[in-house]
Amino acid sequence: MNILYDERVDGALPEVDKAALLQALRTQLPDLEILHQQEELKPYECDGLSAYRTTPMLVVLPRDITQVQGILRLCHARRVPVVARGAGTGLSGGALPLEKGVLLVMARFNQILQIDPAARTARVQPGVRNLAISQAAAPFGLYYAPDPSSQIACSIGGNVAENAGGVHCLKYGLTVHNLLKVDILTVDGEQLTLGSDALDSPGLDLLALFTGSEGMLGVITEVTVKLLPKPQSAKVLLAAFDSVEKAGHAVGDIIAAGIIPGGLEMMDNLAIRAAEDFIHAGYPVEAEAILLCELDGVEADVRDDCDRVRQVLEQAGATEVRQARDEAERVRFWAGRKNAFPAVGRLSPDYYCMDGTIPRRELPGVLKAIAELSAEYGLRVANVFHAGDGNMHPLILFDANTPGELDRAEALGGKILELCVKVGGSITGEHGVGREKINQMCAQFNSDELTLFHAVKAAFDPGGLLNPGKNIPTLHRCAEFGAMHVHAGKLPFPDLERF
Amino acid sequence: MNILYDERVDGALPEVDKAALLQALRTQLPDLEILHQQEELKPYECDGLSAYRTTPMLVVLPRDITQVQGILRLCHARRVPVVARGAGTGLSGGALPLEKGVLLVMARFNQILQIDPAARTARVQPGVRNLAISQAAAPFGLYYAPDPSSQIACSIGGNVAENAGGVHCLKYGLTVHNLLKVDILTVDGEQLTLGSDALDSPGLDLLALFTGSEGMLGVITEVTVKLLPKPQSAKVLLAAFDSVEKAGHAVGDIIAAGIIPGGLEMMDNLAIRAAEDFIHAGYPVEAEAILLCELDGVEADVRDDCDRVRQVLEQAGATEVRQARDEAERVRFWAGRKNAFPAVGRLSPDYYCMDGTIPRRELPGVLKAIAELSAEYGLRVANVFHAGDGNMHPLILFDANTPGELDRAEALGGKILELCVKVGGSITGEHGVGREKINQMCAQFNSDELTLFHAVKAAFDPGGLLNPGKNIPTLHRCAEFGAMHVHAGKLPFPDLERF
Repeated sequence: MNILYDERVDGALPEVDKAALLQALRTQLPDLEILHQQEELKPYECDGLSAYRTTPMLVVLPRDITQVQGILRLCHARRVPVVARGAGTGLSGGALPLEKGVLLVMARFNQILQIDPAARTARVQPGVRNLAISQAAAPFGLYYAPDPSSQIACSIGGNVAENAGGVHCLKYGLTVHNLLKVDILTVDGEQLTLGSDALDSPGLDLLALFTGSEGMLGVITEVTVKLLPKPQSAKVLLAAFDSVEKAGHAVGDIIAAGIIPGGLEMMDNLAIRAAEDFIHAGYPVEAEAILLCELDGVEADVRDDCDRVRQVLEQAGATEVRQARDEAERVRFWAGRKNAFPAVGRLSPDYYCMDGTIPRRELPGVLKAIAELSAEYGLRVANVFHAGDGNMHPLILFDANTPGELDRAEALGGKILELCVKVGGSITGEHGVGREKINQMCAQFNSDELTLFHAVKAAFDPGGLLNPGKNIPTLHRCAEFGAMHVHAGKLPFPDLERF
Repeated sequence: MNILYDERVDGALPEVDKAALLQALRTQLPDLEILHQQEELKPYECDGLSAYRTTPMLVVLPRDITQVQGILRLCHARRVPVVARGAGTGLSGGALPLEKGVLLVMARFNQILQIDPAARTARVQPGVRNLAISQAAAPFGLYYAPDPSSQIACSIGGNVAENAGGVHCLKYGLTVHNLLKVDILTVDGEQLTLGSDALDSPGLDLLALFTGSEGMLGVITEVTVKLLPKPQSAKVLLAAFDSVEKAGHAVGDIIAAGIIPGGLEMMDNLAIRAAEDFIHAGYPVEAEAILLCELDGVEADVRDDCDRVRQVLEQAGATEVRQARDEAERVRFWAGRKNAFPAVGRLSPDYYCMDGTIPRRELPGVLKAIAELSAEYGLRVANVFHAGDGNMHPLILFDANTPGELDRAEALGGKILELCVKVGGSITGEHGVGREKINQMCAQFNSDELTLFHAVKAAFDPGGLLNPGKNIPTLHRCAEFGAMHVHAGKLPFPDLERF
């Protein structure tokens, strides 16, 4: 499955003398581990978005900052592009390698440097796994809040690069809200510290700018995150609905009631059945949609909130509201949700996971429109998502071996993202833009905005050597893609007007 | 009192033909209100930092975006610098005018455009007062969290420009954490939207970059903020201590106990006495320091937290812990704190309000060092500050009419800020850099970091026409100031080594 690959980026890059580069790396950094044989390179040809694959020219696996600095200086001097990679679990092809570039794998930077329980911070290397931070903080009653579904495997450096979210980001924020400080190396190997140990930092907020910049501004060498006290108590409610729209309305009602759940997730019938078959979570398989609502905090507070949420759900027309009876059932409820992607994967040879965000009030209408688009394109769509923050993950089911299905899946995915933009939302929520959604960026932003992005990128990396071809499309590319920009929902997508 | 004025910025700017500019503005924007006579310009010569004064060349008071666009285009074409100003309450001279520049007053943009209780957002013009947003949201049980002491007067546009904080920012974050979207005009009058209605925005996070950029990247024309549900209950505890260091330790103890108070404020004896004389808040005037700790949330939760905080305070050696008996007493406790600056102002002809941030664990040591520096410089220092987030506001008392006192006050202030940097903190917490702390920026950042700031600034404003001479010092300026950069506390300030 390779047709989504876009050869234009690699095509535009200058030729590199691979042998000479290899020789220079070996001479100047004798202890550096370098992969350069075809069979060694193969495992690195894609990240979590395996529909896009490119074999990198070279893979380097440095062990310390001096080596990273050496690699960057050498590549900078020779104008060789560099793509940084963490654990490779990203879902938008942000770490997709370049045929004419070096893949800089930061996986060996896996040390937790300090847990400071008084300051409630953790200082870690970028290759540390997301969950490992919470595990290290647990003896102090603390944890790191952002929890992408891939948290067992994904690295904090990748989380920073993609501004990762998770089930808890409605209440506790995205990665950017849970960071204090990031040490980086610039494209030419300068060490910089962005942010500080203090809440605010003077000058321009380069830490927030850097977060989510997908490896285009620098290479992360150290991360200081905030830790939170573990909530005293957590309860989860499961509500069943006989229509997806009703469930969508209930989400808005909970928030409007002044409650901020720790997590507020939605699954539609296709996803419910898939998860139930796979995990036996105890979900009501006849429901058109379920909501999972977790409330966390102080015991008494959580009890109060559960009562209020139950009331709101019943008023919103839930056919059933169940509270997990004990911790085992709570964990089972979540296991169904957290394994929904692989569960849906069992329904079909292939699926394409989308990631768009919309204002909460648009949930019912957009879900209805997705159902209509699904019928129109003749492809099933399962919906599993962070309903509370409007971050949708429609999973488009297809079979790449059936001629035309991949094309249709891609086209349907594009339509869904355009729909998100049309209702005032955005083409990504937590997976980033990467290579995958670079065309949809032309829909999200106008040419003035894109020009400004390029200018800011150039302030860090004037030669465009860091992860070229990701995140921000060239104006040329947008022109080719067919100027489909919508600003604040004002310009129409003619064929989406009916929604 | 004018000696703090720095003529170098104005000196370096090109000459402007004021008459021709005035003529062009009048011709092209006939309905625009323009002030140009000396006596009309006088009220605009400073913002809240009145030690710095410059008479602007012209003041313009536009009423709509078309007028602002016209002003920017005209000034851009003629290379005339523009300084934007909101309510003029800023404390770091961020809106200090230029002799050879136009002062763009955004006060007439004072409409609340929309309160959306379902999305929990407010869309407002930049000249709307901070408190007015909470007042408009109150009928829906909502409020806007950041609450600078000047909230009755300060405007949301200025809050965004300075990334303002307040008593509640420990729990609810700074302005940047409470924003969704900002519409701006670029230096040449282009309209841009930064951020979106969604939680995350693809591409580079220009909204966070813009927040706190002190008018150097663009002019704000509209702001969409997040609103929060008003807490069900709020209680305040007042704890007295016989030493400032003990109170400083108690702050860290509260946070380490896993409690995040709505506000956690500290005042030392000088500030306590001043506030008590002025407001009669019922403070214990013999205490060396008091802490005010507000706990907010659900009733039961607040009750629990009050008990736990009381315990922590007693263990930390508080000589007395008092809970406000009723809402009237709670309001009185806060009135003392919120009026502490004017109260201290009654003790001395002049005072100089500092704004630095330090890691919480450094509070006891830094307070001790400030006391020693105070004795050394022969000037009284009152401490009133947001202890929970380590944001200090030492108030240096002096008499500008006593020869040498202003110089000594300025020197002492500089020492205190350098001390903040030395212990890993920052030279500002919520008041911004403006003109006031531009020299201390040379201590906070090294030349690579400053160069990057300038490059990012140039991406928005290549000609350097927006608020020149504020926020980011030139490398030349830092060289003159005498390279005093400290990175991560590693290089010494020789004369601060004893702390």
